[in-house]
Amino acid sequence: MVEKTLGEIAAAVGGRLIGDPELRVRGVAGIREAQPGDITFLANARYERYLSETRASAVLCTDGMVAARVALLVVENPYLAFQRVVQLLRPDSYRPPPGVHPTAVVSPSATLGQGASVGPWVVIEDAAVVGDRAILMAGCYVGHQSRIGADTVLYPHVVVREECELGARCIVHPGAVIGADGFGFALDAGRYQKVPQVGNVVVGDDVEIGANTTIDRATTDSTRIGDGTKIDNLVQIGHNVVIGRHCIIVAQVGISGSTELEDYVTLGGQVGLVGHIRIGARAQVAAQSGVSKSVPPGEIVTGYPAMPHRIFRRLHAMFQKLPELFQKIRVLEDRLGRLEREREREAIR
Amino acid sequence: MVEKTLGEIAAAVGGRLIGDPELRVRGVAGIREAQPGDITFLANARYERYLSETRASAVLCTDGMVAARVALLVVENPYLAFQRVVQLLRPDSYRPPPGVHPTAVVSPSATLGQGASVGPWVVIEDAAVVGDRAILMAGCYVGHQSRIGADTVLYPHVVVREECELGARCIVHPGAVIGADGFGFALDAGRYQKVPQVGNVVVGDDVEIGANTTIDRATTDSTRIGDGTKIDNLVQIGHNVVIGRHCIIVAQVGISGSTELEDYVTLGGQVGLVGHIRIGARAQVAAQSGVSKSVPPGEIVTGYPAMPHRIFRRLHAMFQKLPELFQKIRVLEDRLGRLEREREREAIR
Amino acid sequence: MVEKTLGEIAAAVGGRLIGDPELRVRGVAGIREAQPGDITFLANARYERYLSETRASAVLCTDGMVAARVALLVVENPYLAFQRVVQLLRPDSYRPPPGVHPTAVVSPSATLGQGASVGPWVVIEDAAVVGDRAILMAGCYVGHQSRIGADTVLYPHVVVREECELGARCIVHPGAVIGADGFGFALDAGRYQKVPQVGNVVVGDDVEIGANTTIDRATTDSTRIGDGTKIDNLVQIGHNVVIGRHCIIVAQVGISGSTELEDYVTLGGQVGLVGHIRIGARAQVAAQSGVSKSVPPGEIVTGYPAMPHRIFRRLHAMFQKLPELFQKIRVLEDRLGRLEREREREAIR
Repeated sequence: MVEKTLGEIAAAVGGRLIGDPELRVRGVAGIREAQPGDITFLANARYERYLSETRASAVLCTDGMVAARVALLVVENPYLAFQRVVQLLRPDSYRPPPGVHPTAVVSPSATLGQGASVGPWVVIEDAAVVGDRAILMAGCYVGHQSRIGADTVLYPHVVVREECELGARCIVHPGAVIGADGFGFALDAGRYQKVPQVGNVVVGDDVEIGANTTIDRATTDSTRIGDGTKIDNLVQIGHNVVIGRHCIIVAQVGISGSTELEDYVTLGGQVGLVGHIRIGARAQVAAQSGVSKSVPPGEIVTGYPAMPHRIFRRLHAMFQKLPELFQKIRVLEDRLGRLEREREREAIR
Repeated sequence: MVEKTLGEIAAAVGGRLIGDPELRVRGVAGIREAQPGDITFLANARYERYLSETRASAVLCTDGMVAARVALLVVENPYLAFQRVVQLLRPDSYRPPPGVHPTAVVSPSATLGQGASVGPWVVIEDAAVVGDRAILMAGCYVGHQSRIGADTVLYPHVVVREECELGARCIVHPGAVIGADGFGFALDAGRYQKVPQVGNVVVGDDVEIGANTTIDRATTDSTRIGDGTKIDNLVQIGHNVVIGRHCIIVAQVGISGSTELEDYVTLGGQVGLVGHIRIGARAQVAAQSGVSKSVPPGEIVTGYPAMPHRIFRRLHAMFQKLPELFQKIRVLEDRLGRLEREREREAIR
Repeated sequence: MVEKTLGEIAAAVGGRLIGDPELRVRGVAGIREAQPGDITFLANARYERYLSETRASAVLCTDGMVAARVALLVVENPYLAFQRVVQLLRPDSYRPPPGVHPTAVVSPSATLGQGASVGPWVVIEDAAVVGDRAILMAGCYVGHQSRIGADTVLYPHVVVREECELGARCIVHPGAVIGADGFGFALDAGRYQKVPQVGNVVVGDDVEIGANTTIDRATTDSTRIGDGTKIDNLVQIGHNVVIGRHCIIVAQVGISGSTELEDYVTLGGQVGLVGHIRIGARAQVAAQSGVSKSVPPGEIVTGYPAMPHRIFRRLHAMFQKLPELFQKIRVLEDRLGRLEREREREAIR
């Protein structure tokens, strides 16, 4: 167990401390669950009320927040500061040792970098290359001629098929499948013929890929994931998709073949994109939206089919007023009918 | 092959028999596929017409149903009674034997309960605990210090990462991943920094977790699944989610971080919940709905964004009448135009 | 590396060549990425502009397309022709050798066909049957009494539970789970009791099943997938679903229990179908739609709940005109109010 004083932590994360610099903390916890001795964080204003209730010894927070009993460490980005504090207090204790487990099946033509860790039941096929200090945990499969970058971690049961490339410092969670065949068939006399998928997947540096996510190999050429992009669990990325740098792709998103994302795109959970479109830089797609055409840079879109968010909100508000609209029309019909009947009576007179 | 008389079955499930108590059955089947010698059930009124066509020897059904040729066993809940009949007629014949397969890699510091079954290629890391009679089938991975409760079954290729806990009598289907990192990043100078996810997952007793479902570990503290909750395939449960007892979560649901479900909540297939909301006890969310704010106990919600079901139905009916609405307005415009023109003519006169 | 002349390729795929029959090609690539020496294809008119820019030596295309510098091979279905060309130029070089890897655990009562390939860490349980030339890659699990057809390929980490059947020439991608329990519970005194799922899954010939897709076993009887059907990644198919022949099921679709698809049905990505409905032959469901009732043969449906596509388009266009509608009503109210006030003034006079 590592213990640090608040003074040491303030020095490490660069914040302004309101409280005793000699106070010692050793644990990290959520603001509601924290106990004395823990440090926590407040990144979401929704939880500010917990500041007066928390039992934590210290809270990482932004400027302007006030608390009576608890030490505050005021920082610009509490979530980011918390990341650093966790690294101080909880050094990774489960890092597998370097070396090749005796049960791993490693081709003699494969190349393993210095300090790489290859766990039990791992299979590394011919001519594959594993970078320095890379970690392949139990049951991972690395196909022929694939390359795993330095310091990249594959959690248990990751499958990387042949000729695919992962950059440095990537993290791939359990059950992810990289390089399965794209979904391509040509109808011929009433039967679907498989179109061989002979491209590959190329993943940049610092990419994270979630559990049971699938990234298909290209028909020809490469499906590409740019540096720094983070992909959540159960995401489907089709063949020949090209994703830029520093994108955020939340769980259960589906991206159809040949669609492109520029840099810093954010896709909410369960979003679907049709194929062959382009999502501009820094565009955001709200959760569950279905995007059927290209989105310009910086746009925020929502809905099915997706449209600019401000239009969606306006239309949706009107949708909720449909009963009122029907009522207004009934009133108009009544009033108009009354006028017409009066005129008829006058005409008869 | 086990054979039972209808009398024995009626005694076991507690129903009222209309038919010969000496008739013997030995198989279970659907009402359309059943053959003589089979017992079937009728739980869905939609299939009542098959009662006159089935070739089954006996049908478990509710009171008031009538059939000419087939024996009826009248019970309150035919699906539940069928469950008991299946247990009578089809004792589990594929239960792996107790003991550790010679190919399993079990840490010397792990603890295995009495009668536990550890299959081929299983990996059990340091200080992990496996309960009595638990079954870990081929290729399962149990991380450091994780705990698997008594009588819990992990089907092949389940991954339980470090420090996670599963209760007793759970069933986890192939490829499920429990305890992968939550999806947490802090933007820092244009790059997403990973926030370490140092919490865990705590699963109660009698929980079922579907194939390739993913349940993420908490940032700090625990992602929690309550006793008796049943989770279908390909479901995503984010970090710090708290799910109550006896919930039903159908396939492909996605639950974002820190959202809470009280007891007996039902989520239909492909539902998405945003983070940091609360779904009240016994609330139901219709399939594919997108829930963006908390739902009170007992409410039934539908749509995107989700709203009370009765409102959704009303609005949707009006949506379908939009052409009629446009038509009504055209008629109003015509009638009003006519009145206005008449007045103009009168004014000129 | 295989090299062919355009004349040889034209002879093999049956097209009309516009260009030099002696020109040699050896690579396949997308139209934008192709280099001299490559052959590419143009199947989507959206990319026709690339015909004048491509660096490829030859392009498979349809009649009527014109290019200045590149040889054209005019065919009826360029994507299908491309499939054949890939087979000519890129014979499958990673085919695992026949035989059983020494680390595989194969029950003595299992039957392996001639030329079958069983990779490392594969488990084949009692009485299972693996067909001639079938390939089971690393870590696959085949349960008791299951049958894998001739020439079928299971990529790494596929799980086929007990008593399931796969036909000939199927391709199953990594992490797919066939035969996990259907999701069936009966509520009894406040607790969900598991209904044993004692049916199986029967998959026809020439079926493709995507990575991490899950196909549940039937409660009783069989969940069925017809010959020639192609299923993408992360699809969920519930218990007792029956899918016809030559269907296309795109990624992340969910099909609830007992629903039936006739032949040649196409389901777009992320579509959800409720249980107990029937989708008629050649019907198409647009991506993300939610289908709550049966669809007649040949119908194209869209939306949530799904409706005929032409109606959806019309309603959606009207939905986008809601602001105009509200404006029209305000105008009508004003005009009518003016008429009414005039009449009032006249009445007073």
